[in-house]
Amino acid sequence: MPDAVTPGPTPETGDAPGPGPTAARRRHDPASRGFASDNYAGVHPEVLAAIALANDGHQVAYGEDAYSAHLDEVFRAHFGPRARAYPVFNGTGANVVALQAVTERWESVICAESAHIHVDECGAPEKVGGLKLLTVPTEDGRLTPELIDRQAWGWGDQHRAQPRVVSLAQSTELGTVYGPEEIAAICRHAHDHGMLVHLDGARLANAAAALGCSLGALTTDAGVDILSYGGTKNGLMFGEAVVVLNPDAVRGIEYVRKLSMQLASKMRFIAVQFEALLAGDLWLRNAAHANAMAARLAEAVRGIPGVELSHPVRSNAVFAVLPAEVTARLQKRFRFYTWDEATGEVRWMTAFDTTEDDIDAFAAAIREEAAG
Amino acid sequence: MPDAVTPGPTPETGDAPGPGPTAARRRHDPASRGFASDNYAGVHPEVLAAIALANDGHQVAYGEDAYSAHLDEVFRAHFGPRARAYPVFNGTGANVVALQAVTERWESVICAESAHIHVDECGAPEKVGGLKLLTVPTEDGRLTPELIDRQAWGWGDQHRAQPRVVSLAQSTELGTVYGPEEIAAICRHAHDHGMLVHLDGARLANAAAALGCSLGALTTDAGVDILSYGGTKNGLMFGEAVVVLNPDAVRGIEYVRKLSMQLASKMRFIAVQFEALLAGDLWLRNAAHANAMAARLAEAVRGIPGVELSHPVRSNAVFAVLPAEVTARLQKRFRFYTWDEATGEVRWMTAFDTTEDDIDAFAAAIREEAAG
Amino acid sequence: MPDAVTPGPTPETGDAPGPGPTAARRRHDPASRGFASDNYAGVHPEVLAAIALANDGHQVAYGEDAYSAHLDEVFRAHFGPRARAYPVFNGTGANVVALQAVTERWESVICAESAHIHVDECGAPEKVGGLKLLTVPTEDGRLTPELIDRQAWGWGDQHRAQPRVVSLAQSTELGTVYGPEEIAAICRHAHDHGMLVHLDGARLANAAAALGCSLGALTTDAGVDILSYGGTKNGLMFGEAVVVLNPDAVRGIEYVRKLSMQLASKMRFIAVQFEALLAGDLWLRNAAHANAMAARLAEAVRGIPGVELSHPVRSNAVFAVLPAEVTARLQKRFRFYTWDEATGEVRWMTAFDTTEDDIDAFAAAIREEAAG
Amino acid sequence: MPDAVTPGPTPETGDAPGPGPTAARRRHDPASRGFASDNYAGVHPEVLAAIALANDGHQVAYGEDAYSAHLDEVFRAHFGPRARAYPVFNGTGANVVALQAVTERWESVICAESAHIHVDECGAPEKVGGLKLLTVPTEDGRLTPELIDRQAWGWGDQHRAQPRVVSLAQSTELGTVYGPEEIAAICRHAHDHGMLVHLDGARLANAAAALGCSLGALTTDAGVDILSYGGTKNGLMFGEAVVVLNPDAVRGIEYVRKLSMQLASKMRFIAVQFEALLAGDLWLRNAAHANAMAARLAEAVRGIPGVELSHPVRSNAVFAVLPAEVTARLQKRFRFYTWDEATGEVRWMTAFDTTEDDIDAFAAAIREEAAG
Repeated sequence: MPDAVTPGPTPETGDAPGPGPTAARRRHDPASRGFASDNYAGVHPEVLAAIALANDGHQVAYGEDAYSAHLDEVFRAHFGPRARAYPVFNGTGANVVALQAVTERWESVICAESAHIHVDECGAPEKVGGLKLLTVPTEDGRLTPELIDRQAWGWGDQHRAQPRVVSLAQSTELGTVYGPEEIAAICRHAHDHGMLVHLDGARLANAAAALGCSLGALTTDAGVDILSYGGTKNGLMFGEAVVVLNPDAVRGIEYVRKLSMQLASKMRFIAVQFEALLAGDLWLRNAAHANAMAARLAEAVRGIPGVELSHPVRSNAVFAVLPAEVTARLQKRFRFYTWDEATGEVRWMTAFDTTEDDIDAFAAAIREEAAG
Repeated sequence: MPDAVTPGPTPETGDAPGPGPTAARRRHDPASRGFASDNYAGVHPEVLAAIALANDGHQVAYGEDAYSAHLDEVFRAHFGPRARAYPVFNGTGANVVALQAVTERWESVICAESAHIHVDECGAPEKVGGLKLLTVPTEDGRLTPELIDRQAWGWGDQHRAQPRVVSLAQSTELGTVYGPEEIAAICRHAHDHGMLVHLDGARLANAAAALGCSLGALTTDAGVDILSYGGTKNGLMFGEAVVVLNPDAVRGIEYVRKLSMQLASKMRFIAVQFEALLAGDLWLRNAAHANAMAARLAEAVRGIPGVELSHPVRSNAVFAVLPAEVTARLQKRFRFYTWDEATGEVRWMTAFDTTEDDIDAFAAAIREEAAG
Repeated sequence: MPDAVTPGPTPETGDAPGPGPTAARRRHDPASRGFASDNYAGVHPEVLAAIALANDGHQVAYGEDAYSAHLDEVFRAHFGPRARAYPVFNGTGANVVALQAVTERWESVICAESAHIHVDECGAPEKVGGLKLLTVPTEDGRLTPELIDRQAWGWGDQHRAQPRVVSLAQSTELGTVYGPEEIAAICRHAHDHGMLVHLDGARLANAAAALGCSLGALTTDAGVDILSYGGTKNGLMFGEAVVVLNPDAVRGIEYVRKLSMQLASKMRFIAVQFEALLAGDLWLRNAAHANAMAARLAEAVRGIPGVELSHPVRSNAVFAVLPAEVTARLQKRFRFYTWDEATGEVRWMTAFDTTEDDIDAFAAAIREEAAG
Repeated sequence: MPDAVTPGPTPETGDAPGPGPTAARRRHDPASRGFASDNYAGVHPEVLAAIALANDGHQVAYGEDAYSAHLDEVFRAHFGPRARAYPVFNGTGANVVALQAVTERWESVICAESAHIHVDECGAPEKVGGLKLLTVPTEDGRLTPELIDRQAWGWGDQHRAQPRVVSLAQSTELGTVYGPEEIAAICRHAHDHGMLVHLDGARLANAAAALGCSLGALTTDAGVDILSYGGTKNGLMFGEAVVVLNPDAVRGIEYVRKLSMQLASKMRFIAVQFEALLAGDLWLRNAAHANAMAARLAEAVRGIPGVELSHPVRSNAVFAVLPAEVTARLQKRFRFYTWDEATGEVRWMTAFDTTEDDIDAFAAAIREEAAG
């Protein structure tokens, strides 16, 4: 005899005034922000508004809805008339779907030793896609044709997983950026060797804002074949897009997305977020603001004794070297990551919602703690 | 010299009055609903309210936020004190993460020939997880100990991928349901043979509502080891949860989730949706309503000449056989799927937002078209 | 301080007069044969002679030796001028290399429920190649266009692993054979649907001998695209060959072979075995002899009360149903497998080295034990 | 109507006097040897004699034969009473089976950048086993605890494929060797961090001979958990063995071997080869001889102007730097590989069958060509 269903509590509003009744409660301080990662931020209000707009009524699932139908137009305004966008759930998903869609079973991917796909994805490229990564150490996270050549060899040798793709991150995991000419040079080099170029654009918006470039100038115009466009760190709730820039290079991407478990059923809610981001200039406002906050922070800490910036600040990341005890005291007050225990390097990230006051308070704290 | 960034349009409200400024526009009729699938529906308003509640401020990414911290409590109220929930993006992700977490490389999974994991996931279990599926034909989508035994053999034989998990769907892909005793019998049988039981609960709420059972009665109490709990079809925007009921059976699930590309960065927005669903009775209200609408439809079409129900209507699916030309005419007016071209079987799904008027209009249309 | 190396015994001859000094000893009775499997047999003397011929001196490894260079000529005499052979180690390797070489990541393979690739390879197709198998129950191990159609659908549906290959076994796992017209009809059907045909020819020689067909008539001429040619059961020590019959259908097979760990370094020793088998008529003598021994056995047991042949005897397998206690007694005297515990079906295999005396002694034993 | 079977030629002897009739012909010069690789050599006569010994009669397939039954005893004499050997086809197979048998889906393997598993296996570890390799650059192919620590971190971090195994090669791909204390130090270090040690012993015999150590001193006694023992380069026709030294570290290895397509059916022919190699001292005679030939070569070229040895010669490899034009002329007369185009480094390998005359002739040629 089955148990009776226990009737649940009736919906209630949260502790703070909310947008409607719900059984959920607010459990965090919406005014608290830190410097650990740009994905600690929430959703931009314009994105949330867009989601609400797309709600209600029935729409075909799995990408046949009205919002997804409009999506290529949204992306083509930035990436040119051949671009085609395939929304996925997250950045790892975008990267692994993109790389599978441009490789055969026996091919491999050249990337920087610091690449997210190598360091931070728990082996998803290898384990899901069987993708062998050929890594190269770099100075600052950026590949060059010369560095690429350290792994770009052995075509026709059956013992070597054939190098087929060069994968770049823009901005890089170290906050550095490639200029459009640098990307173009890499693309020419790769194409000359029969390879393709993938760009991990988890923070492409930040790079474009930093360089004063359009998104297309850093990708399509430079010869990039396929792109992971990052929405989450740019203000979305969730959602990234594999953007195919060179359709000739790609095979079976819809199937690859589905078998990689990256096909959303209620796809309209990813599509409309991208529309909110990219139909206007929200992508740029968000990125430029985050970058400006990083620059403000870099400026504010310059000259503090014991605090050394360890990479040029180009996008929304500040890397600095601090005495370990300063870091320890500071981390009791603000959230951020130690990047390298050995050197004392820390990483401070800013987001679309970081305020000038946040920066000023943090800089003051750094100054205080550095002074001991 | 990089291109200048083209300034985008300023945010505007959509065509219909929306919840705030956004560059996105409304592109669909929010009053239009059909019978194709329960994932054609949008997000329940209480869920959307919960999302807004969790927004703003910074929260640790990847599941270390305040909402995720509370999640086990939410699930344990339904699934018992040992339950632990691991939110993922979608149903395929939930199934493949769950199955990988309970199998070794050389093991296999017994399921019905009609199972979603076999039919509708583009081979994700095989291609991502290397999971071999051993399928059994069934009458109505439901396995039995006898049917399981058709594949449950060969332990110790190095030539056979070792059967390790029985995977059930509740409700099944054919809308049928297992009673709690039937699940318990299967679990006893599986455990007696050293196997585990996975339940694909994409529509577990509908089954529980149909049976008047608690969620726990159909899972934990019956001996199920691991569960895919379906949120999307139960009213969420996105998000399912792998719910571990028997922790002794599971290894490395956090890593498996990450390498399977199912770890959300802004996890709070999945966690809070589940809180909205499960902390009160929204899960039940949504499911019971969808079921009631299916029952109303079944009742309304009973006796229409030429329309035969092909499975008992137990949850939110109605399967019927219609003349092909009736189906063709009807599909011009309402969206639904033909299930089996050969037999003329169609599937009508109801959702949490299906109204009595929707049903009555549809039933009237069926009656009209059946009359020719 | 490392241990001193213990000096080993000097080479000795085995117990029985052997072909030269060696530290190994003979450990079995070379006159004992059974009916369990054709791979319980050893190596045909002509094959062993060929191996000795290819020994001594240096030859380029991994297939660039003089014997491998000649191999395509050997295979083309049987399979036509476009054929190209890629030797591998074993049958599972041949099947999984062949299937990977003709499929994309998202594709699937239609085969009989009784297929070796489904039943006896511990999930290698799924686990190594991510190959989803779509199985069809058959009467006698043989597919037909109609049976294939039960799985041949869903092209263009992103939720379905796309059917791309039909895999047949010839002779089948149940000892039955396809006539050349039956294979041709399946190939036409597959090709009409944009699919390819793989033939698992672990016992192709036996089928050809049984039908009085050339190897090419059952493969190339019938439209088969890619073949696993079985050497081991045909008298080799080890070695099978993936034979590409339709080069347009195949991509990257050298790489696939290597990454599938099926590339032998001292390849000359596989190549020369195939030369011994196929340059003359050894393949046919071996197969025809094994078939004749099966026929002799079938004839000898026909009419024994309690012994029923359960499939027509077409190649080198005899399937029969016996009372369980007869089987039990018989298995104390001769080695063979029970095929189906439930029905009492047993399988008796003959090999290239089975003698008429072996058959007569076994048939006499069956008669004795059946008489109780 | 099937074609008639074309009768083939009757068996003939090869061009040179052979060991019996066969349709195969001798196609190479058995007196020609080079310096390209130790797997260009053929089969040692004692091994061929052993194979003949094991032939004839029926033996259970897949490892249940009399020779396989004896195999653990053979290996235990070298590797201790807990050792258990699992023969496979080739070195890549041995490595990938061994590594899969000691890892979970989410784990990773630390190895030298020059490791065969990273460089020469076409991505098999990643593509077959989903194994992520974490590579470290080394001076001479040898890891140390300090070098291992560059990748040995991040346990408990769900974003990092968990380091679980350190894989060493002995002798290394650069011909260098680890002393037993060096291996023991690495094993202690790995075990202290919860990791296991795999040893790729494709040329373990050469290392043992070079060091004057027993095989056990370099493996079991030093704390190695699992070993790939190389037979092919040590004089076998084909066949390597995964040797489990620490049974507690391994799961499901029989299944892993089978699903990795490395289970031979006529296993007796691998087992008996290992008996020929390891029951006496053939392993040591072969290895010591190859080493001695390398030492003779190194000695002979020392002092030739323009020829510089680039690594200490410890086993059966000689690495040297030559002017490109000298290499070019020399390669017209003898087969060997250029190791590094950029530096002019070449590799000269010796084998069990290299003669003193071979060395002397080669050294004379080097001297001639270097003199221009």
